[in-house]
Amino acid sequence: EILAAVEACFAAAADRPLAGRRALVTSGPTREPIDPVRYLSNHSSGKQGHAIAAALAALGAETTLVTGPVALADPPGPRVVRVESAEEMLAACRAALPVEVAVCAAAVADWRVAGVAGQKLKKDGGGPPRLELAENPDILATLSKPGPQRPRLVVGFAAETERLVEQAIAKRARKGCDWILANDVSAPTGTFGGDSNRIHLIGGSDDPQAVESWPVLSKTEVARRLARRIAESLGDKAT
Amino acid sequence: EILAAVEACFAAAADRPLAGRRALVTSGPTREPIDPVRYLSNHSSGKQGHAIAAALAALGAETTLVTGPVALADPPGPRVVRVESAEEMLAACRAALPVEVAVCAAAVADWRVAGVAGQKLKKDGGGPPRLELAENPDILATLSKPGPQRPRLVVGFAAETERLVEQAIAKRARKGCDWILANDVSAPTGTFGGDSNRIHLIGGSDDPQAVESWPVLSKTEVARRLARRIAESLGDKAT
Repeated sequence: EILAAVEACFAAAADRPLAGRRALVTSGPTREPIDPVRYLSNHSSGKQGHAIAAALAALGAETTLVTGPVALADPPGPRVVRVESAEEMLAACRAALPVEVAVCAAAVADWRVAGVAGQKLKKDGGGPPRLELAENPDILATLSKPGPQRPRLVVGFAAETERLVEQAIAKRARKGCDWILANDVSAPTGTFGGDSNRIHLIGGSDDPQAVESWPVLSKTEVARRLARRIAESLGDKAT
Repeated sequence: EILAAVEACFAAAADRPLAGRRALVTSGPTREPIDPVRYLSNHSSGKQGHAIAAALAALGAETTLVTGPVALADPPGPRVVRVESAEEMLAACRAALPVEVAVCAAAVADWRVAGVAGQKLKKDGGGPPRLELAENPDILATLSKPGPQRPRLVVGFAAETERLVEQAIAKRARKGCDWILANDVSAPTGTFGGDSNRIHLIGGSDDPQAVESWPVLSKTEVARRLARRIAESLGDKAT
């Protein structure tokens, strides 16, 4: 009986290789207010990010999911923090540190509106207003900055409509993250809002130019595969 | 038995005063594309418009609901047409004509982006792009234009954050519609996305300055009250 309990314990540990690890996942779009009723946003459904948070939690990680507005139910496992804007998302990510792995799957708005109107903008006959934009904080680059709070593994996504791998390699270098999962979001692929994803992983080996192309997988399968890769990576580096 | 059948028939007709009438309702926000992944939108939930379409259908009207992207189930009764942009919404409304009553409850974006990018806009280090906006077609004003296709009754909404009734009276004159339902959408009221609404009806009597203020009602109750008012109005005018 004692032997059986020990075996069960080992088996459980083998199934939960991220037990005792902390993970952070961002998901969904952000919404950047223009005035009290209008906003800028994007078509991210949050399906991939939510699936990754669930997969990391299933492998035992204590997972925080920071999500913009999505039409999805909370996944089982992660602690869920809801935000609207990129600035709110960054603050929630900072509050979740320290973590050993951060996966930035949210489609964070690159720009917000400079000088949000307190009242609803009116058509005054003088033509449309001009929207002056300001650059948003870069959450992936911020989390990737060297320092005591940097997660051991920072994973970003590159959603591109052209020159996918080339742009993803450049993005990895520019952001300072460890891995980039590149995916083609041009309209025919139906990735935004769809249920499957064709991933090209960059940074998974010592060669920064090496590309590991996964087959077309459901977003759930992408999440499981990524979670296992993360577990292997953290396991390898663990002291 | 024949008498009972005739009585049942009259009772049914009394409950369905809009039987044989055609109605058009717009609902939800519109989404105006910026590039393949980004868009402008607003916080309209579609709850009020969807409830109005259901209420008109419940009174017997053959109802078309033209709706932007919402997180609501299709209401029972109306034929539902899904659109994204204001231009698509106008085209769908035109296709639904002729109708005897049109209720424009959608929060149509006043502006779209001029020159939508075919590829995802990139941060190129040269600062944020400037979004040039162009005025969208005005669906309420278009439907209100005199002509053989004009519905007998055109109802609009005025969602305002200040000087509610004053702006609603001006809007009714500017658009050429018959009734305006004005509601306060400033943040404390929780109208956008919320479940209740305080309505001020303008245009319901011969005095264009007269304001009929309804109590705070659930959006379902607002819809039923409006549908009954519409039935009375069309009934009065019927030949």
